Amino acid sequence: MLKGNMVIGQSGGPTAVINQSLVGAILAARQEAAITGILGARHGIAGIMNEDFIDLTTQSTEQLEALANTPAAGLGSVRLKPGKEECERVFEAFKKNDVRYFFYIGGNDSAETAHIISEMAKDANYDFCTVHIPKTIDNDLRVTDHCPGFASAARFVALAFMGDDRDNNALPGVKINVVMGRHAGFLTAASALARQADGDGPHLIYLPERVFDVEQFKVDVRRVVGEFGRCVVAVSEGVADADGNPIASSGEKDSHGNVQLSGTGALGDALAAHAKEAFKGENARVRADTFGYLQRSYPTIISAVDAREAREVGEFGVRYAVSGAGNGSVAIRRLSNAPYASEYFMTELSSVARETTSVADAFISAEGNDMTAAWLDYVRPLVGDLPLIGRL
Amino acid sequence: MLKGNMVIGQSGGPTAVINQSLVGAILAARQEAAITGILGARHGIAGIMNEDFIDLTTQSTEQLEALANTPAAGLGSVRLKPGKEECERVFEAFKKNDVRYFFYIGGNDSAETAHIISEMAKDANYDFCTVHIPKTIDNDLRVTDHCPGFASAARFVALAFMGDDRDNNALPGVKINVVMGRHAGFLTAASALARQADGDGPHLIYLPERVFDVEQFKVDVRRVVGEFGRCVVAVSEGVADADGNPIASSGEKDSHGNVQLSGTGALGDALAAHAKEAFKGENARVRADTFGYLQRSYPTIISAVDAREAREVGEFGVRYAVSGAGNGSVAIRRLSNAPYASEYFMTELSSVARETTSVADAFISAEGNDMTAAWLDYVRPLVGDLPLIGRL
Repeated sequence: MLKGNMVIGQSGGPTAVINQSLVGAILAARQEAAITGILGARHGIAGIMNEDFIDLTTQSTEQLEALANTPAAGLGSVRLKPGKEECERVFEAFKKNDVRYFFYIGGNDSAETAHIISEMAKDANYDFCTVHIPKTIDNDLRVTDHCPGFASAARFVALAFMGDDRDNNALPGVKINVVMGRHAGFLTAASALARQADGDGPHLIYLPERVFDVEQFKVDVRRVVGEFGRCVVAVSEGVADADGNPIASSGEKDSHGNVQLSGTGALGDALAAHAKEAFKGENARVRADTFGYLQRSYPTIISAVDAREAREVGEFGVRYAVSGAGNGSVAIRRLSNAPYASEYFMTELSSVARETTSVADAFISAEGNDMTAAWLDYVRPLVGDLPLIGRL
Repeated sequence: MLKGNMVIGQSGGPTAVINQSLVGAILAARQEAAITGILGARHGIAGIMNEDFIDLTTQSTEQLEALANTPAAGLGSVRLKPGKEECERVFEAFKKNDVRYFFYIGGNDSAETAHIISEMAKDANYDFCTVHIPKTIDNDLRVTDHCPGFASAARFVALAFMGDDRDNNALPGVKINVVMGRHAGFLTAASALARQADGDGPHLIYLPERVFDVEQFKVDVRRVVGEFGRCVVAVSEGVADADGNPIASSGEKDSHGNVQLSGTGALGDALAAHAKEAFKGENARVRADTFGYLQRSYPTIISAVDAREAREVGEFGVRYAVSGAGNGSVAIRRLSNAPYASEYFMTELSSVARETTSVADAFISAEGNDMTAAWLDYVRPLVGDLPLIGRL
């Protein structure tokens, strides 16, 4: 039996349930004789390089449960994509602290980091096990049916559109809501859950999986306003034109080379200006909101399925690691929709690292501006029941 | 006893509990023999002018209760500030339909409309009673201790800052959140409820009640980042410089002559640019979110006190009207904070019309960038208990 300390870290954009995975892993690890000490890395691998650890063996269950119900990475997160030298520093810190288990909660970049370090350990004949625990509101990891963190963000978005559609119904106009999702439109697509009756918005849904044509957008908006006297639009922050250029952005890039899309109102304001052009001379009321970071860190708006699964992928990862079966990434397999049931399994780190997935063609309408019934069947059990919209 | 039909309408920006007031008034009116028919005006006075009424005597209690729990004006709202001619059309529609009671749910502009029409009825010797039922997330009506709709929006804002502060703690930087409030900073001030421990954000709170000095803002942000390594800022959409000019806006105006502030990311983006200047050359991570319309229409984020009081001001208004005591606006008097208790009373329509109030000096810190303990004592009982932030 591989015996030694474990390190756990959190990486990338926070979610509302990422601390469920952390607490699930901690409490499972406390049950395992193979794990002699539990170290929490502050701000992911940035903390590991500096041996900035929190001892996680002594917190009360009460304290941990409060953390589990609190959004955003309790250990701190990081957006650092490490190079070879940085991975070597991480590996040195692991050897120095007799770390034999590494659990990294994050998306595809975190899986890649875990993979690189596991290869280093293999090359050095250092007995070591790395498990990636999936987390992303983008829902864009490969292999798994869906990603912990997505369903709670999707619930926030669905409720937001429910309320905002009633707002738009009360004070009609064109309302554009920009939803997180750089390359994958899963979160934007969740807005379709807001509809409960004919005429309910969102009336148009644009994902980054389809080319965004500004002229077609204007035609679409005019058509919807002609039919319903108003129009609610859901659009992914990552929509781009036929050449792959973002419709609007601040131009700033992070250390992964990604252009900054969140934390700015640029796209919403640009689309509002386009929509106003579509109604030139008609004094149209057009507004845009960018939902921003609220989508990933809003307290109390939690999918029950998501909270449970986020906890269980943490527990499953620890139990798998101490079983001696090797490295891997935890994935979810859906067993049934009614009642919803799922199970966990392991996949290769390399199968999750780097590449991501996006919304399947079968989920997107032929016109490319709406979702299909198959999408609703996929997403509804994850998000859970939504309140009934009352109306006269 | 004045006997005849009643008209009820909703006006201005929706709230999460404005339908509670509507349903409270409808159910109370059904108990009163003086009220022979209940007409709902579609989109406020715009609907009355066109006699666009919904018969509200037949809906089931179940349907009405579902509506009461749904955000945004179920009858439709309007942002029309009527001139003399339009008020005359309203009054003609009332006479034609034997309307003897008019209940208008809205803010100070709605109180003014109700007041003008009540004066017309008096001049015409038409027996008529008008009651204004208060509603505004801005909390800026005079006389009343607070306004129905405010506490639920305040709860949304407080929770948003709780989550966003954890997000910012996980991925440090400067985060600016723009909160609704054109002239009154009550809603922005509610962000102070998000703090549960030393160092929690928001670290700076800027209200329209104080001049916004961009240079002082930069100094403040640098100081906070120096102390905590990060900075979360709450700022009202209505902040303006010493000459009263908005820091940023789209320039669009509504029919009340108000510059459009919501539904655009302009202020957030402008403040983010200023904050980046403050850290020139240091590659600071600065983001801005504009909470937008979610603040007033988000389902399920409801203050229990607010929902109850919104219902009760509707009921109280109807009972007062049929008592024959005359016109007026319903107001709330706070009786105690622990336990929270309040009662309702009537004030003159003219005392609520036109003019508004703003955040008292005693609630704003000497530096003008934070709130006082007195403010927390005022707002906490209205918003209700908030979840515990778990941390390591």
